[in-house]
Amino acid sequence: MKYVVGIDIGGTTVKNGLFDENGTLLEKWEVPTVKTDNGAHILEDVAAAVRGKLEARGIGLCDVLGAGMGVPGPVEPDGHVSLCPNLGWRDYRPESVLSELLDGIRVKAGNDANVAALGEAYKGAAAGVDNVVMLTLGTGVGGGIIVGGQIVAGEHGAGGEVGHIVVNPDEELVCGCGNRGCLEQYASATGVVRVAKRLLERTNEKSSLRMIGEFSAKTVFDEAKAGDALSKKAVDTLCRYLGLACSYIALTVDPETFVIGGGVSKAGNILTDGISAYYERFTHIIPKKATFKLATLGNDAGIYGAAKLVM
Amino acid sequence: MKYVVGIDIGGTTVKNGLFDENGTLLEKWEVPTVKTDNGAHILEDVAAAVRGKLEARGIGLCDVLGAGMGVPGPVEPDGHVSLCPNLGWRDYRPESVLSELLDGIRVKAGNDANVAALGEAYKGAAAGVDNVVMLTLGTGVGGGIIVGGQIVAGEHGAGGEVGHIVVNPDEELVCGCGNRGCLEQYASATGVVRVAKRLLERTNEKSSLRMIGEFSAKTVFDEAKAGDALSKKAVDTLCRYLGLACSYIALTVDPETFVIGGGVSKAGNILTDGISAYYERFTHIIPKKATFKLATLGNDAGIYGAAKLVM
Repeated sequence: MKYVVGIDIGGTTVKNGLFDENGTLLEKWEVPTVKTDNGAHILEDVAAAVRGKLEARGIGLCDVLGAGMGVPGPVEPDGHVSLCPNLGWRDYRPESVLSELLDGIRVKAGNDANVAALGEAYKGAAAGVDNVVMLTLGTGVGGGIIVGGQIVAGEHGAGGEVGHIVVNPDEELVCGCGNRGCLEQYASATGVVRVAKRLLERTNEKSSLRMIGEFSAKTVFDEAKAGDALSKKAVDTLCRYLGLACSYIALTVDPETFVIGGGVSKAGNILTDGISAYYERFTHIIPKKATFKLATLGNDAGIYGAAKLVM
Repeated sequence: MKYVVGIDIGGTTVKNGLFDENGTLLEKWEVPTVKTDNGAHILEDVAAAVRGKLEARGIGLCDVLGAGMGVPGPVEPDGHVSLCPNLGWRDYRPESVLSELLDGIRVKAGNDANVAALGEAYKGAAAGVDNVVMLTLGTGVGGGIIVGGQIVAGEHGAGGEVGHIVVNPDEELVCGCGNRGCLEQYASATGVVRVAKRLLERTNEKSSLRMIGEFSAKTVFDEAKAGDALSKKAVDTLCRYLGLACSYIALTVDPETFVIGGGVSKAGNILTDGISAYYERFTHIIPKKATFKLATLGNDAGIYGAAKLVM
């Protein structure tokens, strides 16, 4: 039996998984992300933990096919990372560094959102599907594009940066990227709260949200499900802009399946139903439509996708 | 020396090219597209002409590596054509049919807009570039997406159908596809004329276009270059919506080069400069920008791309 290691590096913890060559997860563990010295120790800590887990199971590095890694920032096609503010890396080559720490095994790195998409296309909501797009709705909106089973990283590492698709050029508020009207401004956890607050401010409409001081994206979805009209409007805005953005993506790469993940996706079918209704309206030209599915791997999508990178 | 045949099937003529194995065009010719009997004779005529050209040069079919073919409609990944109204084909397998007519040589078919994009990425404006997007601005707006040197045809053959990206959801006029506000409604030859006519109708603004009864897209560009403010506005609308659509495409597949082709592209740099200015505004998140180039192969892009399909 041969083995593969999947590593998902986040800003606070690194998730790790040991897989067999068929992609079955044998064990997972976490190590803290120590960002001192510009993140120089992150991969040392990862390598030490990997060695420990392998030794405990009596597996030699010669039986490890490789290690894949998701990085929270752009990774160039040759593995170079120009800048990763979340980890402190600058002009860094995580593939070579980790490979050297693990006796020269094969290491492959990719952007975390892309790697999560690959994970869902490998063992998750879109298992076995070749053309998949994943949207991760969390604090921001991330995306990953899988064409023919491969990640589309793009020439400048911006493949799948769908959170910054300008869906509303008339927006007044500036997005973190400097633009106005990005998808992220409406479809992230903070976005849907902002949309609801704006509706509360600009209208006198009755809403159960008026009774609640500070509310979260979950509250907006819960109130919408309970029938609150204003909350429904905020959810509808999110679904409309996601449907519009997905139509743009489909008229570019035409996937079979869209996977919706991230914290916001816990809202469930209200989200996939809402998005796909708008999506169908905006893709008249495509006779057979893509399907929308909720992600199934949760926080493990990254380690599955990372493992797949070296399979 | 080995050879390749490139075939670009249009609604009125079929363009053909004989290439050597390095992609040098040795000879090109056309045959009329005879659409009787649901287009059953089109490939017979093509095959007869190919045989004639090869015999005249003393080349045997055994020295032909294959034939590629651009088709004016969607081609499924396995080569099946469900429906091609422009040719009369329905439930047709052009690859097998042509291969049988040419002693079993390898035949590969693709959508014509995708194949033209591959041609420009092979020997045209983006020669040698791996990640290329081509937009063809003609009667409609077509598109082709090249990722890693390969056409992205998509799961339902809608890859690169960028003409139907909804860039203006507030539009009142219905597009041919049934939607409102598609890119094609502003950025095609007919689109830019419509935009100019609308400006003439809705304002009293002076314009040299008012002296001209019926005008073409070329006239609008010529008057814009000559300084006519209203014509400039029409061109600006076209550039703005193209820039917006290209930003959507870039935030999905992030190409190195956008190639602008089709009849409208004869307007020249006014177009590429205008589009890229808006594009840069809508892609704040991408630090290094894609470049915009005018297509260089003209009507030959299809035969070059078709030849590349089998190389």
